[in-house]
Amino acid sequence: MNPQVGIIMGSDSDLKVMSAAAEILEKFDIPFELTIVSAHRTPHRMIEYGEQAAARGIKVIIAGAGGAAHLPGMVASITTLPVIGVPVKSSNSIDGWDSVLSILQMPSGIPVATVALNGAANAGILATNIIGAFDNTVAEKLKSYKEELRDKVLHNVEKIDR
Amino acid sequence: MNPQVGIIMGSDSDLKVMSAAAEILEKFDIPFELTIVSAHRTPHRMIEYGEQAAARGIKVIIAGAGGAAHLPGMVASITTLPVIGVPVKSSNSIDGWDSVLSILQMPSGIPVATVALNGAANAGILATNIIGAFDNTVAEKLKSYKEELRDKVLHNVEKIDR
Amino acid sequence: MNPQVGIIMGSDSDLKVMSAAAEILEKFDIPFELTIVSAHRTPHRMIEYGEQAAARGIKVIIAGAGGAAHLPGMVASITTLPVIGVPVKSSNSIDGWDSVLSILQMPSGIPVATVALNGAANAGILATNIIGAFDNTVAEKLKSYKEELRDKVLHNVEKIDR
Amino acid sequence: MNPQVGIIMGSDSDLKVMSAAAEILEKFDIPFELTIVSAHRTPHRMIEYGEQAAARGIKVIIAGAGGAAHLPGMVASITTLPVIGVPVKSSNSIDGWDSVLSILQMPSGIPVATVALNGAANAGILATNIIGAFDNTVAEKLKSYKEELRDKVLHNVEKIDR
Amino acid sequence: MNPQVGIIMGSDSDLKVMSAAAEILEKFDIPFELTIVSAHRTPHRMIEYGEQAAARGIKVIIAGAGGAAHLPGMVASITTLPVIGVPVKSSNSIDGWDSVLSILQMPSGIPVATVALNGAANAGILATNIIGAFDNTVAEKLKSYKEELRDKVLHNVEKIDR
Amino acid sequence: MNPQVGIIMGSDSDLKVMSAAAEILEKFDIPFELTIVSAHRTPHRMIEYGEQAAARGIKVIIAGAGGAAHLPGMVASITTLPVIGVPVKSSNSIDGWDSVLSILQMPSGIPVATVALNGAANAGILATNIIGAFDNTVAEKLKSYKEELRDKVLHNVEKIDR
Amino acid sequence: MNPQVGIIMGSDSDLKVMSAAAEILEKFDIPFELTIVSAHRTPHRMIEYGEQAAARGIKVIIAGAGGAAHLPGMVASITTLPVIGVPVKSSNSIDGWDSVLSILQMPSGIPVATVALNGAANAGILATNIIGAFDNTVAEKLKSYKEELRDKVLHNVEKIDR
Amino acid sequence: MNPQVGIIMGSDSDLKVMSAAAEILEKFDIPFELTIVSAHRTPHRMIEYGEQAAARGIKVIIAGAGGAAHLPGMVASITTLPVIGVPVKSSNSIDGWDSVLSILQMPSGIPVATVALNGAANAGILATNIIGAFDNTVAEKLKSYKEELRDKVLHNVEKIDR
Repeated sequence: MNPQVGIIMGSDSDLKVMSAAAEILEKFDIPFELTIVSAHRTPHRMIEYGEQAAARGIKVIIAGAGGAAHLPGMVASITTLPVIGVPVKSSNSIDGWDSVLSILQMPSGIPVATVALNGAANAGILATNIIGAFDNTVAEKLKSYKEELRDKVLHNVEKIDR
Repeated sequence: MNPQVGIIMGSDSDLKVMSAAAEILEKFDIPFELTIVSAHRTPHRMIEYGEQAAARGIKVIIAGAGGAAHLPGMVASITTLPVIGVPVKSSNSIDGWDSVLSILQMPSGIPVATVALNGAANAGILATNIIGAFDNTVAEKLKSYKEELRDKVLHNVEKIDR
Repeated sequence: MNPQVGIIMGSDSDLKVMSAAAEILEKFDIPFELTIVSAHRTPHRMIEYGEQAAARGIKVIIAGAGGAAHLPGMVASITTLPVIGVPVKSSNSIDGWDSVLSILQMPSGIPVATVALNGAANAGILATNIIGAFDNTVAEKLKSYKEELRDKVLHNVEKIDR
Repeated sequence: MNPQVGIIMGSDSDLKVMSAAAEILEKFDIPFELTIVSAHRTPHRMIEYGEQAAARGIKVIIAGAGGAAHLPGMVASITTLPVIGVPVKSSNSIDGWDSVLSILQMPSGIPVATVALNGAANAGILATNIIGAFDNTVAEKLKSYKEELRDKVLHNVEKIDR
Repeated sequence: MNPQVGIIMGSDSDLKVMSAAAEILEKFDIPFELTIVSAHRTPHRMIEYGEQAAARGIKVIIAGAGGAAHLPGMVASITTLPVIGVPVKSSNSIDGWDSVLSILQMPSGIPVATVALNGAANAGILATNIIGAFDNTVAEKLKSYKEELRDKVLHNVEKIDR
Repeated sequence: MNPQVGIIMGSDSDLKVMSAAAEILEKFDIPFELTIVSAHRTPHRMIEYGEQAAARGIKVIIAGAGGAAHLPGMVASITTLPVIGVPVKSSNSIDGWDSVLSILQMPSGIPVATVALNGAANAGILATNIIGAFDNTVAEKLKSYKEELRDKVLHNVEKIDR
Repeated sequence: MNPQVGIIMGSDSDLKVMSAAAEILEKFDIPFELTIVSAHRTPHRMIEYGEQAAARGIKVIIAGAGGAAHLPGMVASITTLPVIGVPVKSSNSIDGWDSVLSILQMPSGIPVATVALNGAANAGILATNIIGAFDNTVAEKLKSYKEELRDKVLHNVEKIDR
Repeated sequence: MNPQVGIIMGSDSDLKVMSAAAEILEKFDIPFELTIVSAHRTPHRMIEYGEQAAARGIKVIIAGAGGAAHLPGMVASITTLPVIGVPVKSSNSIDGWDSVLSILQMPSGIPVATVALNGAANAGILATNIIGAFDNTVAEKLKSYKEELRDKVLHNVEKIDR
C-alpha cells in the first residue's frame, strides 16, 4: 500500500526522537515511509523530495530537525502538502530554543505545523488527525485512542487517590 | 455550503489578528465559520464546540488565543480533528512567549499544529494545505498561490536589483 | 472529616513533585484529597471536579501540571474557589518556562495563584495561609512554623559562623 | 467597616497598575485599604505593616512591585496571611522578567501567590476568591461575575459571528 | 568590474536594513551586486544563485533574513564561499531571537558567519575584512577606517570631557 | 582584628558556593566574618545585621542568595555600605535567571554590586578591589595577583602552543 | 580637587543614560571626571586609562556600554580599582540582555560590579557607598539620602492612602 | 610554511572545544597556529597578537571564549583581518547565552563572524571557506568535503530507509 505520510529527518542522530512518529502511525495502521533528507547536506534531494511527495500519494509530511532547523520550512516552501515540524533538541542546542524558533516562526505564505520540542509522537497523532478528518475509519480509531488516554488516567486515579 | 474550517478565538480583541485567517480562506474559496469561544469564560461552550465540530462537517479548527492560551489545546483534547493554534500577542503578553509556549508544548497524545506568533494568515494557508491534500482543485490553487508568491519576489527583484 | 483542600495533578508522573503539598497539609492537620484530573485526557472529569469542589466543602484547590499546563487555569475558569497553580518541570519542558507561563499569564477575570517551579510544598503552605486567615488554630500553627524556620537558620548559624 | 484586604505597592508610580485591584474589590463590596510600603525605601514600615496586618483584621495582602521586586516576598516572610504578588512592568524592566521571577521563585516555606504581569485586576479577583471560600455572599457574587464574563463573550459572539 | 560581494535578502522589506551593507562596500570601493533571493518563495532561484556565485567571481555572500531565517544557511549549504548572515528583526519577530538563532546555530559542516541583529553595516565591514586579507589596498583602507572610528571618538571626547 | 568584610548567605546550602569568597579574602589577608542571614526566615536578624555592620567596622558586605533572592537588595536598603550580591543557582532555579534578575535589577537609590552567577570568588576579589582602593598594601597584593593570573596563562601557553 | 570617580562610556550616545551617574556624584560632592573611552574604537586609550586611573587618585571607575559591552570588563582586567559596570540598552540591543550578560558574567579573577540595565544613577550611588565606607562625611550624607528616599515615600503615602 | 589561520582561546579549559577547529584545518592542509590569549588575564599579549597577526601572514583569526567573552571582539578591534568568534559554553555559563551575546552583538564598525555555540569545527570550515574564495585548490577540497557530507547522509539513508 502506498505511504500516506512521509517522515523525514535531517540526520540519523534524529532517529532516536523521530521513531516515535513511526510508532504512532503503525498503531493507527497509517502506511508511511521514513528516510533521511538533509536540507544542508543534501539540498537537491530535499527539493526533489518536496516536489514529488504529493504525486506519490503522500498526504502529510513530518519533518524533524535540530539547531538552525531548516528542513521543515524548506520542504514546506516546495510542496503544497501540510508539513508538520518537529523541533529536535540536538546536542549543541541552546536549550531547544533554536530548533523551536527556526521551525515555528515561518514567514507569511509558508506555514509549518509545529509541535512540541522532541514531540515526534504528537507529530504522528497530528498526521493521523489530518487523515482522520477525511477517513472515518481513522477517525473512529482516534476516538478509541482518546478513550484509552482517558482510561489510563482513570486507572491511575484508582491507584493514587486518597 | 457547509463550513470546512472553524475559526475560533478567545476574545473579540483577537479578531484584529485572526481575521487574516478568514481572508486567506476566502481567497481559496474554502467555506468557513468564525466565532468567539473562550476556554476560560465559556468552558461549556468550548466543550460543546469541540464535540460537535466534526459532525457538522468541519475538517480543520483554527484556534487563536493570547497569554496563557488554553483554547487551542483544550479544543484539541475534545475533538479528533486537526487543531491549528495561533499564538496571539496580547497586550499584557511577555513578548509573546506565554501564548507560544502555552499552545506549542502540548503533552503526548494531544497535539496542536502551532504557527508563528500572530500568524493567522499562515493558519489559513495550513488549513488549505490540509484540505488540498484531499482535494485536487484546492491543491491546484495552492500551486498557483506559490507561483504568485514567487512572481511577487521576482517583480521586486527587477525593482531593486543592482 | 471533609477535605478542605483538593490536590489535583495532570498525570501520575507529577506525583513525585506534588506529594510535597500533601506532606505540608498533613503537617498542619488540614484534611485534603489528592487525585489525578487531566485537562487534556479527562476534560469532562475536570469540569465536573471544578463544578463540585466548593459544594463538597473544598476551600482551596491546588493544581499541578507541566508543559502547556492548562489544568490550573481551566479549573479556575469553572470554580469560584481560589486555585493555586504549581508549574511542574516535565521531562520535555523547555527549562520550565512553558509550565510557568501557561499557568501564570491568565487573562483578566480568571486568576491562578502561581507558585515557584516545582513549588508544591509552597502550594501547601499557601493553602494553609488561606485557611489560617479564617481559622485561628491554623494561624497559630503557621506562627510556630515560621519560628521553626527561623530556629533552623539560627541553629545552622552556630554551626558555620566564623 | 474594617478592611479585609490590604493593597500595598512599592512606589506611587505603581498606582496606575495597582488601582485595578481596588476597582475589583469595590465591585465586590470587599472593604480594603491601599497604601505605599516600599521594601527598599521604608524597610521598617514594611516589617511593621506585615506584623500588624492580621491583628487589624486583614485577611489577604495584595503587594505589587517592579524590577527586583522584593515587597511581596518580604511581607510574606513576616505575616501568616496569604500574600498575592503582582509583578509590575516598571520603566527599566527587562521585559517584565525581573519582577515576575523576583516574586514567583520564592524559597520553600514562604510562598507568594503570583498573578500575571501587571495583573492587578486578577489579584483583586483572587483576593475575592479567597474571601468567597469562607463567605457565601461573596461566593454568590463571584458566580454572577463568571456569568457576566460569559454573557459578555456571548454578546460579542452575536456581533462577529459569521 | 565584476562584483566581489553578493548581497541577497529574503524580501524587499529587508532592504531598509540591508542597504547599510551596500553603503559600506561603496565606501571601500568593493564592487557588489544586490538582489532578492527568497529561500521560501523562490527556492530554485536560491539554489541557482548559490551554485553560480563563485563562478561569477563572487568572493563573499551577505544574506539577510528575518523570522525563521533560512536563506543564509541554505545558501551556505550550496556554495563553498563564505556566507555572512544578517539576522533581520522582522515585524512579527519574537524580539529578534528567531532570526538570530535560525542563522547562528548551523549544524557541523555548514557555517554561517553571523553578525549582530540588524547588523548589515557590520556584514559589509566583515566582507571587506575578508577581501582585505588578500588585497593590500583594501587592508590599507581598513586601517584608515579604524583610524576614522578612533578619531571620531577622540573628537567626541573633546566635546563632552569634564 | 576586626572583620572588614561580612559574608552572609540565605541558607547553609549556599555555603558550597559562597565559601569561595572566604578563600579569596584569606588569600589577601582581609579579615572577614561569615554567617547565615535569611531575608525570608530571619527578617529581624537581617535588619539588625544591616543596621550594625558599619558600626562594627565592616567596609563591604557580600550577600549570596538563590531563587527570588532578596537578601542582597534588602541589606542594601538598610546599610550605607557597598553590598556585593552573588546570584546562587539554587536547585529549583530557572537556569539561574531568577537569582540574577532579583539581585541585579534594583530600583533607583539602592544599588547592589552584582557579580556573575555563582561568582563568589569574584565577589571576594571585588571586596578586595574596594579595600585596595584605600589601602596600598592590598593594592600591591592585587597587582601581584593579576601577575599570577597572567603568568598562569603564559605557563599554559607553553604547554599547548603549536 | 582630584577626581575620585572616573565615569567612562563607550560612545557619546551613552551620555544620555550615563549622565545620571554624574548627577548623583554632584549631589554627594564627590569629585569626578567623565569621558569617552571605547574598548573597540580606542583600545590603546582604554588600556592607558585603566593603567593610570589609580595613580591619578581615582578610587572607583564607572563604565557604561551597550550591546556586546566589553569596556567595563576590559578596564577591570587592567586596573586594581573596583569597576562598576552599567549595561546600556543600545538601539540594536536584544532587549538589553546582550549588555547585561557581557558585563555581568566575567570570568574568575576579574569581577565587574554590575548594576541594573540603564542603572547609571545606581552606579553613582554605589560609587558613593564605596567612598562612604572609608569617609564618614560621605557616609553621613548617604544616611540623609536614605532618609530622603523614605520621606518621599511617606509623603506619597499621605497623598494616595485610603 | 607560515600559518594562515591563528586559533586563539581565552583559557586552556577552552581547548577541549577549540581543538575541533584545528582538526578541520589539518584535514584541509591549511597551516595554522594555536595558542592561549586571554583578553582579561593578558590584555597586552592580546593587543600585541592582534597588531602583529596580519604582518605574520595570518589571513583569518579564530577566537574562542566563554562567559562574558571579550576576546573575539577585542581582537577584532585591533586587526583588519576577519575574526571568527566561537562562543564556548563555560562551566558557569547561563546556558551559553552570555558567550553568544558577548560575541555576536558587536557595535557598528567592528564585526565578529560568530558561529554556533561550541561550533569550533564550523569556525574551521568558515576559515577554509574564506581561504578557498581566493585559492582554487582549497575550493576544490571544499567541494569534495560537501560531497562527503552528502554521501554520508545517503549512506545512512540506505541503512534506515523504510
